[in-house]
Amino acid sequence: MAASKRLSAIFPCLEWAREYNRETLINDLTAAVIVVIMLIPQSLAYAMLAGLPPEVGLYASILPLVLYAVFGTSRTLAVGPVAVASLMSAAAVGAVVKQGTAGYIEASILLALLSGAFLMLMGLFRLGFLANFLSHPVISGFISASGILIAFSQLKHVLGISASGHTLPQVATSLAHNLPDVNGYTLAIGAGCLAFLYFVRLRLSGLLQVFGVPESVAGFVVKAGPVLSVVATILIASTWQLDAEGVAIVGAVPEGLPTLGLPAIHMELVRELALPAFLISVIGFVESVSVAQTLAAKRRQRINPNQELIALGAANLGSGVSGGYSVTGGFARSVVNFDAGAQTPAAGVFTAIGIAVATLFLTPLIHYLPKATLAATIIVAVLALIDFRMIRATWIYSKRDFLAMAATILLTLGVSVEVGVASGVTLSILLHLYKSSRPHCAVVGLVAGTEHFRNIRRHDVETCDTMVTLRVDESLYFANARFLEDQVYRLMAENEKLKHVVLMCPAVNEIDASALESLEAINHRLEDAGVKFHLSEVKGPVMDRLQRSHFLDELSGQVFLTQYQAYRALANGEPCRSNKAPTGGHNEA
Amino acid sequence: MAASKRLSAIFPCLEWAREYNRETLINDLTAAVIVVIMLIPQSLAYAMLAGLPPEVGLYASILPLVLYAVFGTSRTLAVGPVAVASLMSAAAVGAVVKQGTAGYIEASILLALLSGAFLMLMGLFRLGFLANFLSHPVISGFISASGILIAFSQLKHVLGISASGHTLPQVATSLAHNLPDVNGYTLAIGAGCLAFLYFVRLRLSGLLQVFGVPESVAGFVVKAGPVLSVVATILIASTWQLDAEGVAIVGAVPEGLPTLGLPAIHMELVRELALPAFLISVIGFVESVSVAQTLAAKRRQRINPNQELIALGAANLGSGVSGGYSVTGGFARSVVNFDAGAQTPAAGVFTAIGIAVATLFLTPLIHYLPKATLAATIIVAVLALIDFRMIRATWIYSKRDFLAMAATILLTLGVSVEVGVASGVTLSILLHLYKSSRPHCAVVGLVAGTEHFRNIRRHDVETCDTMVTLRVDESLYFANARFLEDQVYRLMAENEKLKHVVLMCPAVNEIDASALESLEAINHRLEDAGVKFHLSEVKGPVMDRLQRSHFLDELSGQVFLTQYQAYRALANGEPCRSNKAPTGGHNEA
Repeated sequence: MAASKRLSAIFPCLEWAREYNRETLINDLTAAVIVVIMLIPQSLAYAMLAGLPPEVGLYASILPLVLYAVFGTSRTLAVGPVAVASLMSAAAVGAVVKQGTAGYIEASILLALLSGAFLMLMGLFRLGFLANFLSHPVISGFISASGILIAFSQLKHVLGISASGHTLPQVATSLAHNLPDVNGYTLAIGAGCLAFLYFVRLRLSGLLQVFGVPESVAGFVVKAGPVLSVVATILIASTWQLDAEGVAIVGAVPEGLPTLGLPAIHMELVRELALPAFLISVIGFVESVSVAQTLAAKRRQRINPNQELIALGAANLGSGVSGGYSVTGGFARSVVNFDAGAQTPAAGVFTAIGIAVATLFLTPLIHYLPKATLAATIIVAVLALIDFRMIRATWIYSKRDFLAMAATILLTLGVSVEVGVASGVTLSILLHLYKSSRPHCAVVGLVAGTEHFRNIRRHDVETCDTMVTLRVDESLYFANARFLEDQVYRLMAENEKLKHVVLMCPAVNEIDASALESLEAINHRLEDAGVKFHLSEVKGPVMDRLQRSHFLDELSGQVFLTQYQAYRALANGEPCRSNKAPTGGHNEA
Repeated sequence: MAASKRLSAIFPCLEWAREYNRETLINDLTAAVIVVIMLIPQSLAYAMLAGLPPEVGLYASILPLVLYAVFGTSRTLAVGPVAVASLMSAAAVGAVVKQGTAGYIEASILLALLSGAFLMLMGLFRLGFLANFLSHPVISGFISASGILIAFSQLKHVLGISASGHTLPQVATSLAHNLPDVNGYTLAIGAGCLAFLYFVRLRLSGLLQVFGVPESVAGFVVKAGPVLSVVATILIASTWQLDAEGVAIVGAVPEGLPTLGLPAIHMELVRELALPAFLISVIGFVESVSVAQTLAAKRRQRINPNQELIALGAANLGSGVSGGYSVTGGFARSVVNFDAGAQTPAAGVFTAIGIAVATLFLTPLIHYLPKATLAATIIVAVLALIDFRMIRATWIYSKRDFLAMAATILLTLGVSVEVGVASGVTLSILLHLYKSSRPHCAVVGLVAGTEHFRNIRRHDVETCDTMVTLRVDESLYFANARFLEDQVYRLMAENEKLKHVVLMCPAVNEIDASALESLEAINHRLEDAGVKFHLSEVKGPVMDRLQRSHFLDELSGQVFLTQYQAYRALANGEPCRSNKAPTGGHNEA
């Protein structure tokens, strides 16, 4: 039993496979058909976004799906090529190999393998928590900025002109410069597709329902929109041989399934792609897990983030060995899969079979597919990623979070995706540490007639000239240890009559080695100045740890169980003084 | 008055200059004489450690001291070349320019200028808090490892052999390999000096006092130990012309004071030295401030860390323009200065004058100074930096802190000083974030007959099947936001009858945008599953901020002032259940 449990922790598919029945099969098959129809144009389009031939997108939608179905813990996550990872792949590989060469494809495949290896290792070492350091404003800002960048990068295909660059200013300048070369046929197809796709997305479902079409059928038609535009523009381009008129088409696509194998692995290339591969892994993982969690919660299921790392790692390794590129869980397709009624990851296996069949038989048909159609598909998909509302909400809620978000957006657009996300993460960590390096501290006094102690700046309290009590509302650790020292020395310099300093610790959950060192320094320095140092209300586990050091032996004063005991013992006989709180809010302790 | 106050914030010297009198002058002069005697051999020795000619060490002990006296807030800090900064300078410059060339000196000067610029900028932008991210175990480990590295790097001078390398294994291998070439005369001088200096340091003061010499005189003689060994070995080497026997001597030293000027500044070199310059700045600053704070506290004075950055910045810029190299506040010399009775930074100015006089008149005399003498001086000084006791104490106190310390030590010894300290800082931040990413959480229940709620795993409490209350003992921010989600979803998956989830927030001092997003996600996902989400005991400032978002409008449940009110309202009419705490400690809440 334990062995079977351990086995199904590694292969979560054993869990659901046991209960698989006819009903589940029908649900999964239905969902798979809908996802296949959605995934074919997306796979072709995202491959183009990643600077790769269309078949690479299809290859990335076969084996990875099967492997995710075996290892994944989400019942409904749909993996495959996605917009942001494709953009990051293009940026990373484009920085080291020229696009359009065989080396470019090999490097993209290598990037997927490296991503897969990182994800797998992170899963095996249970490092899923690393993704927690990507704060929400940073991810949200990064995705919005990527959306803008992707949309701009695809405009050239819609306009039929060339444009280059990896930053928004570069792309925009390049577009503006080449604008006179715009190809009318291409623009007609691209703009037509854009208009059609927006119409389908925003209006068609409502319109069909007005005409009495059932909601489920209407929903299906909406999802088939991109496929319809693909079919229509292939027919148009092939009928009028528009490639002769300068309309860029997909061209010859190799037939048949991918062969398994590894690309040539150069250590130099591995070094250059390692950092981007890591970033793609982490961002893909975060996106994927948050989609998976959202969907799982709706059915009261759970996912296991560390096992998800392994599953996504396997999917990327699978993609790499079968000629595909970086994959992760996609938001839109997972929601479609879920809504279409997928019950188990078997739906993913059926989707993979569907894509494989398409790869086998349909590739000759996409020869005349205009690139403008694919670009329009991408633009419509990524514009949905741009979230101005969230930017505004973050500004209102927290300036600190907004700062991290703004840095991420500006650097992603202006420098590079990697610099953008790395700076955002670093900045949000630094801002957090900065804040906790200046914890809330209050000098407290006794509320007359009670045993309670409150901030002397907010409450009418009693104090004593020869003792001062400082309460710190945060754990003590390296980033705030010196701040604490500084507070105590300030109190000492300001109060000439001082004989006792009490540190009140009810909110201190931890004292690390740096803070211990600071407490020791405070103790010695106060002692040199003839002042005794005391602690009060130290929590049990913190006290246990202090007992492992010499601090308590050397402490010039005492450790009091309660602040009231400390006050009674130390103020003994000394004259007390009443403090009037300055006018102002009483809503803080 | 306000203007004068502002002026004396920029020039703290205005503060003490006003009260300067004859008594202060005598105290400062006495201290300066003692410090000069100590600083001359140290300046020569540390210049050698930094791979520089001896006069560069003297130059670094003139103008920087004057500038620190003008801008510094510590009354007794003594700046100048120090061991660790010299080692770091040698490592940084040695990585880009070959030692012994004119370019090497220029690069060392440039490094001091860059350090000065960094310190100045950090001071102007009030970034002194950045130094807080150097945890004590990391600094302590780094200094110990540097001490070991320095001692090993100087052994070659004591043995009279050559050795190369920047890591401990490299230096040790190189020493072992060249051991057969040991020069007997050099070894005799080196070992003799080591023995003499250790004797002076450990025994002489006691011995003199036994013979009735007053303590103050004995102390002075001890401080003059290095100067005595310098004078003695110069006499020995010149009398017997030991340079002809293979004893390495200092040789010709340019006479006169340094001329002011800037080195040629190549942008390439600036780029390569920027990171080491930053690290030297931060480490020098941390060391300097902690010495200054210790000494200031003894006299109930205060120092201003941001002004210290400006003062140290000015000192390094001054060092750079006057042909010196990286300087910072030194521990030993500051203590000597303090003990000798220095009252104001004027002591530093007098020290500078003393060194200038020495530079003018004494440089011809040090021609025959054996390098082995300087190496012995360095070794004795740095072995005092190695703190095995602290390593042991950290191991006992906290395994997490020990991990950061061990990484710093091993990487400093085995890879490079920069990698060592950078990895230590990164690791301690990551370990801290990791810990706070998994905050203490407890499901709580009502202690029967009271209004208190306690951990159900530690106390006998009453709970209710349809509601569960989770208390989080930490502020909610990006690193623990998903952990919180995970905890709630686990509770939801485990309790089928659940209708209400209450998040009890008495210890939550902040909810950042990521945590807000998680709370919104929890709210929506619980709602989808038919469960209401409530908060209780939310602090005032946290509530204020939540009101700036839409969260409270969308919250499916309520915000309760106290947990007891929440329990009474939500458990209303539902059957309650008594929980027996599992056997085990009751010492946690």
